[in-house]
Amino acid sequence: MLICCLCTPCGIKTISLVIGYGRGFWGLEVLCCSDFIIFSKYVFLMIKIKVGIIGGAGYTAGELLRILINHPNVEIAFVNSSSNAGNPVADVHSGLIGETELNFSSELPLNKVDVLFLCSAHGDSKKFMEANEVPASVKIIDLSTDYRAKSPNHDFVYGLPEINRNEITKATRVANPGCFATAIQLALFPLAAAGLLTDEIHVNAITGSTGAGVKPSETSHFSWRNNNISIYKPFGHQHLDEIGQSLRQLQAGFKKAINFIPVRGNFARGIYATTYTTCALNLNEAKELYANFYHNAAFTFVVDKNPDLKQVVNTNKGIIYLEKHDEKLLIVSMIDNLLKGASGQAVQNMNLMFGLDEKTGLALKSIGF
Amino acid sequence: MLICCLCTPCGIKTISLVIGYGRGFWGLEVLCCSDFIIFSKYVFLMIKIKVGIIGGAGYTAGELLRILINHPNVEIAFVNSSSNAGNPVADVHSGLIGETELNFSSELPLNKVDVLFLCSAHGDSKKFMEANEVPASVKIIDLSTDYRAKSPNHDFVYGLPEINRNEITKATRVANPGCFATAIQLALFPLAAAGLLTDEIHVNAITGSTGAGVKPSETSHFSWRNNNISIYKPFGHQHLDEIGQSLRQLQAGFKKAINFIPVRGNFARGIYATTYTTCALNLNEAKELYANFYHNAAFTFVVDKNPDLKQVVNTNKGIIYLEKHDEKLLIVSMIDNLLKGASGQAVQNMNLMFGLDEKTGLALKSIGF
Amino acid sequence: MLICCLCTPCGIKTISLVIGYGRGFWGLEVLCCSDFIIFSKYVFLMIKIKVGIIGGAGYTAGELLRILINHPNVEIAFVNSSSNAGNPVADVHSGLIGETELNFSSELPLNKVDVLFLCSAHGDSKKFMEANEVPASVKIIDLSTDYRAKSPNHDFVYGLPEINRNEITKATRVANPGCFATAIQLALFPLAAAGLLTDEIHVNAITGSTGAGVKPSETSHFSWRNNNISIYKPFGHQHLDEIGQSLRQLQAGFKKAINFIPVRGNFARGIYATTYTTCALNLNEAKELYANFYHNAAFTFVVDKNPDLKQVVNTNKGIIYLEKHDEKLLIVSMIDNLLKGASGQAVQNMNLMFGLDEKTGLALKSIGF
Amino acid sequence: MLICCLCTPCGIKTISLVIGYGRGFWGLEVLCCSDFIIFSKYVFLMIKIKVGIIGGAGYTAGELLRILINHPNVEIAFVNSSSNAGNPVADVHSGLIGETELNFSSELPLNKVDVLFLCSAHGDSKKFMEANEVPASVKIIDLSTDYRAKSPNHDFVYGLPEINRNEITKATRVANPGCFATAIQLALFPLAAAGLLTDEIHVNAITGSTGAGVKPSETSHFSWRNNNISIYKPFGHQHLDEIGQSLRQLQAGFKKAINFIPVRGNFARGIYATTYTTCALNLNEAKELYANFYHNAAFTFVVDKNPDLKQVVNTNKGIIYLEKHDEKLLIVSMIDNLLKGASGQAVQNMNLMFGLDEKTGLALKSIGF
Repeated sequence: MLICCLCTPCGIKTISLVIGYGRGFWGLEVLCCSDFIIFSKYVFLMIKIKVGIIGGAGYTAGELLRILINHPNVEIAFVNSSSNAGNPVADVHSGLIGETELNFSSELPLNKVDVLFLCSAHGDSKKFMEANEVPASVKIIDLSTDYRAKSPNHDFVYGLPEINRNEITKATRVANPGCFATAIQLALFPLAAAGLLTDEIHVNAITGSTGAGVKPSETSHFSWRNNNISIYKPFGHQHLDEIGQSLRQLQAGFKKAINFIPVRGNFARGIYATTYTTCALNLNEAKELYANFYHNAAFTFVVDKNPDLKQVVNTNKGIIYLEKHDEKLLIVSMIDNLLKGASGQAVQNMNLMFGLDEKTGLALKSIGF
Repeated sequence: MLICCLCTPCGIKTISLVIGYGRGFWGLEVLCCSDFIIFSKYVFLMIKIKVGIIGGAGYTAGELLRILINHPNVEIAFVNSSSNAGNPVADVHSGLIGETELNFSSELPLNKVDVLFLCSAHGDSKKFMEANEVPASVKIIDLSTDYRAKSPNHDFVYGLPEINRNEITKATRVANPGCFATAIQLALFPLAAAGLLTDEIHVNAITGSTGAGVKPSETSHFSWRNNNISIYKPFGHQHLDEIGQSLRQLQAGFKKAINFIPVRGNFARGIYATTYTTCALNLNEAKELYANFYHNAAFTFVVDKNPDLKQVVNTNKGIIYLEKHDEKLLIVSMIDNLLKGASGQAVQNMNLMFGLDEKTGLALKSIGF
Repeated sequence: MLICCLCTPCGIKTISLVIGYGRGFWGLEVLCCSDFIIFSKYVFLMIKIKVGIIGGAGYTAGELLRILINHPNVEIAFVNSSSNAGNPVADVHSGLIGETELNFSSELPLNKVDVLFLCSAHGDSKKFMEANEVPASVKIIDLSTDYRAKSPNHDFVYGLPEINRNEITKATRVANPGCFATAIQLALFPLAAAGLLTDEIHVNAITGSTGAGVKPSETSHFSWRNNNISIYKPFGHQHLDEIGQSLRQLQAGFKKAINFIPVRGNFARGIYATTYTTCALNLNEAKELYANFYHNAAFTFVVDKNPDLKQVVNTNKGIIYLEKHDEKLLIVSMIDNLLKGASGQAVQNMNLMFGLDEKTGLALKSIGF
Repeated sequence: MLICCLCTPCGIKTISLVIGYGRGFWGLEVLCCSDFIIFSKYVFLMIKIKVGIIGGAGYTAGELLRILINHPNVEIAFVNSSSNAGNPVADVHSGLIGETELNFSSELPLNKVDVLFLCSAHGDSKKFMEANEVPASVKIIDLSTDYRAKSPNHDFVYGLPEINRNEITKATRVANPGCFATAIQLALFPLAAAGLLTDEIHVNAITGSTGAGVKPSETSHFSWRNNNISIYKPFGHQHLDEIGQSLRQLQAGFKKAINFIPVRGNFARGIYATTYTTCALNLNEAKELYANFYHNAAFTFVVDKNPDLKQVVNTNKGIIYLEKHDEKLLIVSMIDNLLKGASGQAVQNMNLMFGLDEKTGLALKSIGF
């Protein structure tokens, strides 16, 4: 209850109170009884989003923490990891030294958070949702594949702002897209939105090792992977489902084959995709189409100069570049798999869900080298 | 001229006007004539530091731009590069796409800036200073070696906040330390400050390729450097001068040999140094000495767990780790050569010189991987 | 002049003298005058091929030297390099220390060699041939693109043993194939030979930095290329010409598009290519086709297990792997760009041209890691 | 039983039969009855060394196989690996495709081999020796640490040819040196042999990831190790024992501290060591000392030009380079940890033990890049 205590005779005539997560202040404007007294005071009172993280020891959780620790409107309530309970978060997640005193927790105080990030392994998010009663008021952002496929059985919105910004803004639950899926979809959305996907699509995308997660395996062994190249799941990668779903959302009835070859690269971060398909547009028309489509995108840029992967590494950007060769339109697209391809996009979604500026906390310095 | 226009009868009784670079607002408090009228208004008016950059096409300039572009209190006035004049800065400096529309300039509007960063090659800063009349009001931060040696001929302060914070705060001209020099000095300052450097010192430090700059050379060729290791200038690296100067500043009369072997590493960013010397302290005493010395350091942290280089990559941090083996104290220290070793420290110095929080604009997300 | 000195009365009745490069011995069989005296003696006398190298300071020359230095049937007569004349070859070419005392030479004693390797830059081989009178007896193996296109103006044979072994055996002049061209052709030859190239072809191939040569450039700078990916000349790489020429040699009238995207990888050695096209064969049929086609190939192997690039690095091998997805046949092919893609294949060609076992000197230990 | 069948009347007067492993021929010279008949025939008959390998799935076994597969005098009898029994060796060990049809075996036909390589983990060699009755005639080369320390309890000779060539030649059992130990000892032997180790020794050595073996760990994960540097076991690495033992063998009573910092490098192969100590010799004297000491070494070379690690990668070489700075002699030494630091040296030892040329099978092409 707010009481104007400046002068007793009057009551409060008008209080305009605008309050919001992360607006950076709490605005109170009082128009008092006497005509000429105007009291205007802005109290700096940051309303912070309380965040809980499930699966806190994995790569995406680490990246999420590296972002959120500097996010002006976020307070990390807990980082759940049964295997690491009690250990300092900075001991597990490289780069957090000096930035946080947080410890991993085995508890799940779900009613104490505003948003929950599920950084669990694929399959485990569904198990978590079934095993726990998440309060309806708590927003959820799931980084696994579990809720990416639209279904009458759940209300998760596919969290790719480039096509679903409005839905995300209103959503309580968001399924964060896959990394390959994000890179490839960014390459194809403008064509799909214009109904121009008329032929099969050819995609080759090379990914950093962090895409395979923290668990050691033969193909993540340094001695093997250093200076090495290989493919996996050619023509059958699981991300094809969500790609197809989004393309059909934009271009109903799209049914062409997507010939997708995922490549394991000898670097840690980033996805670099080359995509081409038959396209009736000439280069200038295509450039205009893409520029228009991404005109309002917060992080996706269409460039004129042949780009390289490191331009996006450690940023939440998507970069797109076009060439036309005979009837083929070549679309180069690239993202950082841990950022725009995972935790960065998750924060972007959080920003949208809480009414913050989409870019808050995501003005990340590019690695450059 | 500020006029209180609320009510005509009175004049302005009190104006308390606190203004500062980057304080984030311009505070005007008016206590008016009538006893009961209090007008208090905070206008969000950012006073930005106008920055000019000389030698704008090199690595340190690029890194500086990647930092300053997100610095809340900086406005980049010009980026000088005769060879690139007219070209977009984002064409040359990776990672700036979508973040700036700046072009390189061949002009030098020195009177339009508050601070000048000299990112020139070693030797060129002196030439620049001789050839140009920099207004006395313009602060200068020189990233070359040219003014690191104290001399009656110039008034540059050696810009290592861990020992010279006060001097930097008051300085108009700062000589930004070398990258190897920073990493090694951080390892030795607490001992020197306690007068404990009593024996010769052994240093091996491995550096990323960006330390050698943008100019291609045999040893920066990818085919050669990939998976390769080599040394250069053993026992004779030019940074030994500034290291010795600082150590003598803390421990007058220090004269012991510093046996320093610089190593070329097959990575792009970072310096990892191992330093050891005879030390009378036991491990706990040494840890306490270091912890106390760096207690107020904004970016230098003493850790208890054997660290690795990537914990500092893409941050302005220095990380220090201690072990004791017989009579030898081993000090592991590491920095990002382009940040704490160059442009990050330059911004830290700028923050101090302009009365900003030392960390402003430097809460950089660690690369992690 | 050979004189049988066993017994004076007779003259030499029969001398059967089989002599050959690298046969390892010089066979002299004498059937003497007396009926019962049979003299048979094999003198170990290696007839070595005298080799001259033009453009001796580049990468392919270095690799050639690293092979030839251990080739049992080769003697290096001169390594021409005007820029390095007089310097030890081992100073320029890594890995030759302790293996050779050779110096670079500015001279061209063309009449003292049996074979000449042209390791010149593209365009320079033609200039060399025009400027110098190479004796007709001297065999030439050109590693540049200059003579790969068949033409009435020259008699160079395209030196890809997998399709031209017989021609190479008889050739005096051989145009050594390009690296990308070799990797991609190995993927397509069996289909072409069976007349099965009926649809357009999709190729993505990633190459090591050594493919771009010793001359430093922006994209060969370690700081840039490390952990980076980019493409160049998509759909228009110069090797498409020789690929098309060979495919038409096997499948007359082949005219389908080859959509080829060359990728710059962040490793030094190797080319990893994924190729796919519509194919009527099922997987087993395709495997059989490929196995049969390469049955006699000295270095090209069809494998059943998804391979990785390092399986060929530092070897002269080509490895091929097949998958079938719906109507698409996926062919993974890989080579070491400096060996099977350049100098290794050049030595393979030399072996064939001189009647040696094709594998001589090419049993190279794989790097493994 | 050899019968001279040239002429019946006589018997065989003289047979001089020189037979040896890998001599490449089987010499039979017959001086027949009739005075003037001389029959001389050399049959090419390779007597091959039958090799058994224990611990066949690890890195050193793989490297051993990549060498031995091309060794002219070796026949691999079995490769024991219980976990991989029945699988093709080429499926596990990269780079053997097309070179061998061998399968792993779970059997141990110890009486069918001439030599046994123990590529077991440290500690397991001893267990193997205790659990199995190796025939006395079978030579053993152990690559683990288990028998490197001289002891009255075993008769293993320390297999570093640079100091123990004669002993190795006569040995039945050899303990193959450690990788770090080899690199560091090569740096110090000439000084020790001259009794010149008079002060403490400072060593920093950076190793490739293959040194840590095939078993995945946190520090062998590509995402972690890529572009990363860290140290382990500073001042306390287990190889210090064997280093000290050898130095005392050459310089009795040597007791000075060896301050050794092992560094984990972000490359797969190689060890690059910098060692320095106080030394009374000037640079030329030191060079002469080293050149003389290694004059007869098959693989160790002293060079005049600052070398880099890749000069030894994929070779069995040790390269040594000297500088003098004030009273300190700096010795740079480098080897390939899997070759001169393990399997290559094991083969060198085998060659010596079987009377072959020390270099047989070890003329390996350097990777170069």
